[in-house]
Amino acid sequence: MGSSRNLTLYVDLLSQPCRAVTIFCSGMIDDDDDDDGHARVNEIEADVQIVSFLKKETREPPFLAINPLGQVPAIDDGGFTLSESHTIMRYLAATRKVADHWYPEDLEKRACVDRVLDWQHGSIDRDAAQFLVHRELAPLLGRTKNPTLAAEAEDSLKQSLKTMETVWLKDSPFLARGSQPSIADISSACQLQHLKLLDKEESGALLAPYEKVKAWMVAVEEFTAPYFVEVHGELEKLAKILEERRKSEAEAELETAPKL
Amino acid sequence: MGSSRNLTLYVDLLSQPCRAVTIFCSGMIDDDDDDDGHARVNEIEADVQIVSFLKKETREPPFLAINPLGQVPAIDDGGFTLSESHTIMRYLAATRKVADHWYPEDLEKRACVDRVLDWQHGSIDRDAAQFLVHRELAPLLGRTKNPTLAAEAEDSLKQSLKTMETVWLKDSPFLARGSQPSIADISSACQLQHLKLLDKEESGALLAPYEKVKAWMVAVEEFTAPYFVEVHGELEKLAKILEERRKSEAEAELETAPKL
Repeated sequence: MGSSRNLTLYVDLLSQPCRAVTIFCSGMIDDDDDDDGHARVNEIEADVQIVSFLKKETREPPFLAINPLGQVPAIDDGGFTLSESHTIMRYLAATRKVADHWYPEDLEKRACVDRVLDWQHGSIDRDAAQFLVHRELAPLLGRTKNPTLAAEAEDSLKQSLKTMETVWLKDSPFLARGSQPSIADISSACQLQHLKLLDKEESGALLAPYEKVKAWMVAVEEFTAPYFVEVHGELEKLAKILEERRKSEAEAELETAPKL
Repeated sequence: MGSSRNLTLYVDLLSQPCRAVTIFCSGMIDDDDDDDGHARVNEIEADVQIVSFLKKETREPPFLAINPLGQVPAIDDGGFTLSESHTIMRYLAATRKVADHWYPEDLEKRACVDRVLDWQHGSIDRDAAQFLVHRELAPLLGRTKNPTLAAEAEDSLKQSLKTMETVWLKDSPFLARGSQPSIADISSACQLQHLKLLDKEESGALLAPYEKVKAWMVAVEEFTAPYFVEVHGELEKLAKILEERRKSEAEAELETAPKL
């Protein structure tokens, strides 16, 4: 389905769900059976507005008029405003020209996508966020790290990765049983990609036991190339800043350590 | 749409999302314009199987064959198995004869329902559960109460109640802008009804400032009568047991207190 409405997308690319919506809009697959060698085209025309939550722009009146909850992502589709990344992707899949596999018309296939999206809310969304905050990001957010909460979140996160490995990806390359990705794949992949803010060895060790999860992340990145990497540019920059800071802190600690 | 498939519903009525799905199946409104005075009829025929998570029946092989995640609610619809309460309600709304207001066909109206459902995951679902566990239920679950986490969850829960009062219910009797309830209303109402497990004064004080939320809860209960009250029978029993226990503990404390 096409739409002649003007779409504005409000995002902060440091946010996982914002990246998911942005990649979804960029990485649509043209359903047409044309052989021009450009299967992947941007089918969703949108004016992208960056709204920074670190600068508290999400709390300012102009944005609160779009989303009174003060959260990104949000959209304005010809005057109809909407928030929540899963909801936005479902809505755009229904109102724009989007390949069926992203959010299938078939009711059983669609339910399989919905199930993973709903599962994600109460598992990796919650756990990855809590783990990152209490292991790494708390000082940036003006909060205090809590090692107990970090450990609890790490345990839960490992359980969720195990569920991905042994249930969702057991017999399928993507999370919702399809041979091509759905909006649930984009959403979960953006969430796990956020773990790049950790020390490389730590994030590597966390994912190491889950071969299918690692292969699936590569598959999602490849399927949505080049958008997946492009949209993660801001996250990569922040990851490098944090890496440098960890190095300086470690060196400073070494210098002040008692000499043997 | 009708369905000739045999539906089995796996629930534990002590669980909020299980109650939501059960009420949804019981309380469907017949779309037909018949004037028999029985607008509310049970349109979804289902075999209801009770699977107790306190007895760990959700972890036993027969149920794991239905839902490998070991969580209720789940359904088996003629061999197609599904979990996650929001997903189940969306699927049943699409495959059974269900009045449109529960999950509207209109894409904007539907998006408004989806938005509240997705919002609920990251707000009242998380906060009400954490608040109840750390204020009241932890010993029942073999865990230790953590007053700091209880206080944090209480703050978040109040924020979410304020969002319901000032955003979702601002200009509408139900959460998703409709004049009749949607699956988001059933789902959120079951979640908040769970606060009945608290001391009555405490749960009363928590909800007291939110007039629209209180009126909305009554409206959801009335719209789905008599099913809302029926399906909450198990929760009411548990609430009474906890109330008695609190009384005995308070009396015991009084008896062992030093006499003045």
